Amino acid sequence: MDPNDPRLVAFIDVPRTSDFPIQNLPFGMFTTHDDRSPRAGVAIGSYVLDLRAVASAGALELGARERTVFEEPSLCAFFALGQAAWRRVRASVSTLLRIDNPRLRDERALRSRALVPMADVTLQMPVEPTGFTDFYSSREHATNVGTMFRDPQNALLPNWLEMPVAYNGRPSSVVVSGTPVRRPQGQTRRSGAPRPIFGPTQKLDFELETAFVVGTGNALGESIAVDTAEEHIFGLVLLNDWSARDLQQWEYQPLGPFNSKSFASSISPWIVTLDALEPFRTPGPPQDPAPLAYLRERQRRGFDIALDVSLRPKGGSTGSVIARTNMRTLYWTVAQQLAHHTISGCNARPSDLMGSGTISGADRSSLGSLLELTQNALAPLVLAAGDRRTFLEDGDEVTITGSCTARDYRMGFGEVRGTILPARS
Amino acid sequence: MDPNDPRLVAFIDVPRTSDFPIQNLPFGMFTTHDDRSPRAGVAIGSYVLDLRAVASAGALELGARERTVFEEPSLCAFFALGQAAWRRVRASVSTLLRIDNPRLRDERALRSRALVPMADVTLQMPVEPTGFTDFYSSREHATNVGTMFRDPQNALLPNWLEMPVAYNGRPSSVVVSGTPVRRPQGQTRRSGAPRPIFGPTQKLDFELETAFVVGTGNALGESIAVDTAEEHIFGLVLLNDWSARDLQQWEYQPLGPFNSKSFASSISPWIVTLDALEPFRTPGPPQDPAPLAYLRERQRRGFDIALDVSLRPKGGSTGSVIARTNMRTLYWTVAQQLAHHTISGCNARPSDLMGSGTISGADRSSLGSLLELTQNALAPLVLAAGDRRTFLEDGDEVTITGSCTARDYRMGFGEVRGTILPARS
Repeated sequence: MDPNDPRLVAFIDVPRTSDFPIQNLPFGMFTTHDDRSPRAGVAIGSYVLDLRAVASAGALELGARERTVFEEPSLCAFFALGQAAWRRVRASVSTLLRIDNPRLRDERALRSRALVPMADVTLQMPVEPTGFTDFYSSREHATNVGTMFRDPQNALLPNWLEMPVAYNGRPSSVVVSGTPVRRPQGQTRRSGAPRPIFGPTQKLDFELETAFVVGTGNALGESIAVDTAEEHIFGLVLLNDWSARDLQQWEYQPLGPFNSKSFASSISPWIVTLDALEPFRTPGPPQDPAPLAYLRERQRRGFDIALDVSLRPKGGSTGSVIARTNMRTLYWTVAQQLAHHTISGCNARPSDLMGSGTISGADRSSLGSLLELTQNALAPLVLAAGDRRTFLEDGDEVTITGSCTARDYRMGFGEVRGTILPARS
Repeated sequence: MDPNDPRLVAFIDVPRTSDFPIQNLPFGMFTTHDDRSPRAGVAIGSYVLDLRAVASAGALELGARERTVFEEPSLCAFFALGQAAWRRVRASVSTLLRIDNPRLRDERALRSRALVPMADVTLQMPVEPTGFTDFYSSREHATNVGTMFRDPQNALLPNWLEMPVAYNGRPSSVVVSGTPVRRPQGQTRRSGAPRPIFGPTQKLDFELETAFVVGTGNALGESIAVDTAEEHIFGLVLLNDWSARDLQQWEYQPLGPFNSKSFASSISPWIVTLDALEPFRTPGPPQDPAPLAYLRERQRRGFDIALDVSLRPKGGSTGSVIARTNMRTLYWTVAQQLAHHTISGCNARPSDLMGSGTISGADRSSLGSLLELTQNALAPLVLAAGDRRTFLEDGDEVTITGSCTARDYRMGFGEVRGTILPARS
């Protein structure tokens, strides 16, 4: 049966509000208190299915090569098998978890070993990216930033409508959800001041993004065609690309953002596969002008993923949702992004992470950064308990969630969450 | 005896013109036809000393931990031991190679196994960088580029004199010397044209740079102080940061260079240690204004490294030297670069590669790129055999060399070399 069939039911009780019904089956890496060796898992309801345990027990209907990749301490070897293998593994996990399959359901010893309550695991980085690229593919965001940082009359630079503009980020500081974020220090210059000053950023911001994870890459000197690009993409995660706006404005010309964005970029621990997202595809916005041939798609396919940001102020008991947007608004698709990235002959590699850029919608409640939500501190946000925010304060917690809703089921990404620590003294 | 002592003589005959006298002892990775496993080596004259072979034979006077790191297929474990261990290893290699030490000199079996003629080895990437940063630290280069790409009146942007400006490069396409470079394709827009066109770059350029290799890093959220930064740096290599100027000019605003610089960056295979460079230190240029406190050094220390670029045109028998410059002209030191990179809390990691930026001197023969040498194609270069060049043509070979000269000896970096392949059709 198609692993996305809405009629599928797992033998584990999965509440209808869970992000992880049997139709999702995202991949991640985890450890437990008793076993600190990182291993691959699949989220199902409030459990993690230990792939190493079920593969080594022979419970997955797979070839020998597909079984042994889960002995590895990363998903790299699994990625290397390619899309057909990813699909076979997901299908066999789906089969194993079905309510009508006794294989795991009734084998008590294996079941207690292989199904670990999510509360008992520590989720690790799902990949250790050796490349981190951040695109800039939301037209609304690029327009808003261009208006504030440059010229409202020419907010969108001329190259923006011709290519998915991007820059290289810093792979070393990509961290998994839950990792605290220390307020960075650096140079800022007040308008009109002769020289910059040094100190903690006064404009610490989040950026609401998604990112795709490359499963299989390309050789240096070759490129990936736009119409086959998705075959190389394993799945998506949520990304919060923390930014220090005052540092950014002073440093970014002419070579782009550097210290203002390299202190932390947080990702969600579960990679939702493109296959699981298939029921939630949507045409991207129309493109005018029509892109150059290497970016022209036979079929434009975005993702209908609802994205929320909530901010829990220091000491607060609950978060306030401060922005609601959707990935379907992105102008450039993941296929166009990967095709553009490699058209020069640049090699993509397994585990590369490629961010969407901040996703902002058209209205004021759908903006993906505080820079936009507060108009660069001119219009403070008022949170549920009356707290006001322009930029982030120490102790604030930011959580991004993502979810997809079909007629018969919903699924989600879990969350990416981070709390601000004070700057080093 | 100090491994830099000019009186030291190796038992292997090293011509006075060699880059690799016993005072140098740079580290790299190599394979041989008979043994394809990558292993660490040290260059001596026209030989490579196999560190795995001499360490496992007990020929290096080292502790157990220091010996076992050379069993690894990379230098990472060696780097992790830290500066004191790097020094002990270099001193013990120096001792082993001395003319008055019979240990290896007279042990014929080990000697024939451990000293491999350089002609018989394939030099590999000395590190596999998971981070690649490129600074922009030559005042002359930044001024020249600012003049051509922006505004001659304000060539140097205001942040340039306050911080070592940098951007994140693409680690995946860093390649070792000798790797051919395929001409990239991409978007360019002619001045005044309504839309860009797609095709092979017409302005393929080299960039003459050095790069430092991080030996030990810092934890995320911490930083590295400017006065101890050099303790974290293992050594230097030569870097050719190939660039497509027409792609660059169209894409680089507002997020910096991307496809124009991510198709290949070539490095030399031997890492010359900071210790070996100690006799060739020189004060950097004076800095005015005095930098902010976190960038202020107790002692400013640059490197006196002569750098040459030669261009051998397709079909030509010899190369013409087209630029001669020196690393001592750099405005920002490696210590300032690493301190600035980490001041935000960004973590540096072992094997990170950090480029200097193009090194241009003050006069017309000391410019580190064709963009500058030909004034963006306005003034073609005439090569030895009469060939003319504005930018690189298919089949051209570019070689960068670096050398240091003391009163009693000279040493060098070897070379970084690459030949241009035609664009994919």
